[in-house]
Amino acid sequence: MASSTPSPALSPSHRPKEDSERPPRDIGTLYYTDLLPFTVTAAPETREFLARVADLSIEFIRSTFDRNSKILDFHQPEQLKEVLELDIPAKPLNLDQILVDCKDALKYQVKTGHPRFMNQLSCGTEVVSLAGEWLTAAANTNMFTYEIAPVFILMEQVTMKHMRDVIGYKAGDSILAPGGSVSNLYAALAARHKMFPDYKKKGLLALPGELCMFTSLHSHYSLMGAAAAMGLGTDNLIEVPVDEKGRMIPAELDRLIQDAKSKGKVPFMVCATAGTTVMGAFDPLHAVADVCEKYKLWFHVDAAWGGGVLLSKNQRHKMDGVERSNSITWNPHKLMGVLLQCSTVHFQEDGLLISCNQMCADYLFQQDKPYDVNYDTGDKVIQCGRHNDIFKLWLLWRSKGDEGFEKHIDHLFEMTSYMVMRMKQHPDKYELLNDEPECTNVCFWYVPYRLRSMKPGPDRCKLLGEVQPILKGRMMTAGTLMIGYQPLDHHPNFFRNIISSQAVRREDIDFMLEELDRLGYDL
Amino acid sequence: MASSTPSPALSPSHRPKEDSERPPRDIGTLYYTDLLPFTVTAAPETREFLARVADLSIEFIRSTFDRNSKILDFHQPEQLKEVLELDIPAKPLNLDQILVDCKDALKYQVKTGHPRFMNQLSCGTEVVSLAGEWLTAAANTNMFTYEIAPVFILMEQVTMKHMRDVIGYKAGDSILAPGGSVSNLYAALAARHKMFPDYKKKGLLALPGELCMFTSLHSHYSLMGAAAAMGLGTDNLIEVPVDEKGRMIPAELDRLIQDAKSKGKVPFMVCATAGTTVMGAFDPLHAVADVCEKYKLWFHVDAAWGGGVLLSKNQRHKMDGVERSNSITWNPHKLMGVLLQCSTVHFQEDGLLISCNQMCADYLFQQDKPYDVNYDTGDKVIQCGRHNDIFKLWLLWRSKGDEGFEKHIDHLFEMTSYMVMRMKQHPDKYELLNDEPECTNVCFWYVPYRLRSMKPGPDRCKLLGEVQPILKGRMMTAGTLMIGYQPLDHHPNFFRNIISSQAVRREDIDFMLEELDRLGYDL
Repeated sequence: MASSTPSPALSPSHRPKEDSERPPRDIGTLYYTDLLPFTVTAAPETREFLARVADLSIEFIRSTFDRNSKILDFHQPEQLKEVLELDIPAKPLNLDQILVDCKDALKYQVKTGHPRFMNQLSCGTEVVSLAGEWLTAAANTNMFTYEIAPVFILMEQVTMKHMRDVIGYKAGDSILAPGGSVSNLYAALAARHKMFPDYKKKGLLALPGELCMFTSLHSHYSLMGAAAAMGLGTDNLIEVPVDEKGRMIPAELDRLIQDAKSKGKVPFMVCATAGTTVMGAFDPLHAVADVCEKYKLWFHVDAAWGGGVLLSKNQRHKMDGVERSNSITWNPHKLMGVLLQCSTVHFQEDGLLISCNQMCADYLFQQDKPYDVNYDTGDKVIQCGRHNDIFKLWLLWRSKGDEGFEKHIDHLFEMTSYMVMRMKQHPDKYELLNDEPECTNVCFWYVPYRLRSMKPGPDRCKLLGEVQPILKGRMMTAGTLMIGYQPLDHHPNFFRNIISSQAVRREDIDFMLEELDRLGYDL
Repeated sequence: MASSTPSPALSPSHRPKEDSERPPRDIGTLYYTDLLPFTVTAAPETREFLARVADLSIEFIRSTFDRNSKILDFHQPEQLKEVLELDIPAKPLNLDQILVDCKDALKYQVKTGHPRFMNQLSCGTEVVSLAGEWLTAAANTNMFTYEIAPVFILMEQVTMKHMRDVIGYKAGDSILAPGGSVSNLYAALAARHKMFPDYKKKGLLALPGELCMFTSLHSHYSLMGAAAAMGLGTDNLIEVPVDEKGRMIPAELDRLIQDAKSKGKVPFMVCATAGTTVMGAFDPLHAVADVCEKYKLWFHVDAAWGGGVLLSKNQRHKMDGVERSNSITWNPHKLMGVLLQCSTVHFQEDGLLISCNQMCADYLFQQDKPYDVNYDTGDKVIQCGRHNDIFKLWLLWRSKGDEGFEKHIDHLFEMTSYMVMRMKQHPDKYELLNDEPECTNVCFWYVPYRLRSMKPGPDRCKLLGEVQPILKGRMMTAGTLMIGYQPLDHHPNFFRNIISSQAVRREDIDFMLEELDRLGYDL
């Protein structure tokens, strides 16, 4: 210390303990100005207000897991606008109204953690992860420097290293990004930078021609978004045909690379998908890696969805070859059940993320700081400020351990097998698009009574495609079930059921099958 | 409803009320599997566990606002690794350990809401916004469709419309993005798309030459990041000189545009900054708008930092002319005190965001949904999944009203004036870089005793620059104060004090000045 004079701020005798321990005033009639920090003696009221919000949230969680509660109370947008008071007022509203606002928001919100919400790749609410997010909010910090997020920066390092170990990378670097699309963008930027390091500075002038990248026809649309944003143009994202299970065909990839080269294009990256969005297919990673090695292309794996299988001895063979990739996207907010948003991207080569994205802002990344500035992460990303997405993942992993996560993944696949088995018992009602799903996506058509005896053909096909959205509408109105649907290739609309919530039990699958029949039988 | 059979799931008589109301078991010895949804009768334990995490967080908030508590307990990274147990275990840890993990994380975390934390553009912890974030975590949804986020999508619409009204846009569209850098990227992508609509598909082939954009020398480094990511190359981000207050010089902008054109480059966008990162300068928006009109260029305003001044009658004149812009970035997580992360970008022209970023993913944005799919937002962004960043903003605005936010902004500027006034009373100790700050950035050198009598010149200048980082190190060790520092142009390291926390009072500023002197006098 520079001086021996004690700091006037740190004397404990000044603490207004009596304020902190008295009972709170009736908070309903108070305003934000009656809370901390506006009123310095308002610790009891602040505690009471936050405790009430916590209570509301906990009650929502309880009812989320209550199979007797509805998943949603559906209203059309125009109806909901009438029911809710959403306007920004000129004058402050009291805390009573703020608590009513909180209640109303939850009342009309969809319970994405409900055991019968099977609508998205991110279903479920993990309570420990939720606890992590509450604490993250209280800590309210930014992940760009060790200076203001020391604990969370170290957690990131430890957790990302653990994930790279699971992947099979010997070294490398990783970062958390706001969603899998941005993670995939980071991979594409690094791939371009690796092949054309002058590009960052010079742009087009550094290029020998039109760059192009390859991905499967069933890959996620974020690759196309990256092609547009990066300036390649979507024409330069070349889509590789897939087999009947939705997996990229490596021979087609080889052919398309040769084709692009013969047209003077410059291939630089191939993206294989591990768990496609709709069918849940895993591209054959070893075969794709072979093609990448042959043509010296960057090999990225988009395992935003399927990455979780790496945690299970029973399932991880589906990603054999991932250790040969240059980069991988893996979203813990999907199969691993971490709260939204938690996406990671990992690189086999250390140092690339920073050399690609570094802009050396003096005001944040001073080199003469009083600690080792290699711990600062902000210059590795295009984001600058970055939300703390690590604590909710780290805390959940601490509570489950690797073993718990293995059980977690195995449970999801067991439930999926059970669903497929049950559907196969009633082939008249449930037509599977793929009777051996590779991930927890179960794609099927519900067949209403009148179509069961109809001859297969274009007419029946068209009708089937029209029925599914109507059935979806009935589910939402009933509030008992949520399953997503979409068309794909030549297939008309079908349901894609996702099991990514730990809440799902056999009884929920039995319920789901009965409920489809109850709601859709007469369509 | 399709059928008159009641759903078996919705009968209230099945609810296990007795479980919900019994006292919880001792949760310390339990594991995650003893909580919901793993144990279906575990509502009491789940409630107890979450309540304890809420209590820990609330206690952290209380101590954050306690001026007798330290801002941080600084440890070097290697020390902190020894103190904390960060490893991912093979086997599950019990809830007692999970709660210890939470305590430890908060113990070593920097209190960014402390009244004497003046280190970043985002300081302070707004309790109502924190409440919003807790509820957001419980709701755990994704903002891409109305289907699964109906309430929050409508809140976004209402709040974004309100912000566009404040800006002075007659119509338009807006989106929330993960930070100002991504918001600026959205603006640049839209600007490019507007001028070259074929570019999205064709890439380079659609361009008449090398695109370039313009921003001030003091603008945020995210513009350079955007130039690299988008494929322009950082050489094609042309930096416009600034005046002594850090404001872009419009005549220089005009000259540099002509210069770029004469070299065959294709200017497409100018970014003016409203509140530069270091000095807090506001570029002259009308004059920049005139230049943009003259050359038919997209006019973007990066008001990530300064945007909040629009809420104050006393301050908004600094952004006169903003209504002439094509787009504006404005981060409520900065001057407005919303929890991290909350950034918005607004467009004067409606429809551009979607035509620029739309990739039409069938699995999410089906056109035959049972509601008006214009409410779905996911196809407007490059993110796909998007965290719910609206509730914490909307709820805070409801609690403050426009009037409360005006007071909020005015308070920050009053505190800034007070700080500058107090520093001017001691010119020997505090040398201001700019004695009339335009925003709440106060840039200054602390002058230790031995330098006070030294002649101005390169030697003193060099010493001053060396002293500030050492003083920063002492602040962190003492834990009593946090202020950022950096060099800028030819200026050696100086402090940039930010007032963006509602907790700051005159006594904190008095304390800060004394503490600098206490810690730095002998340097």
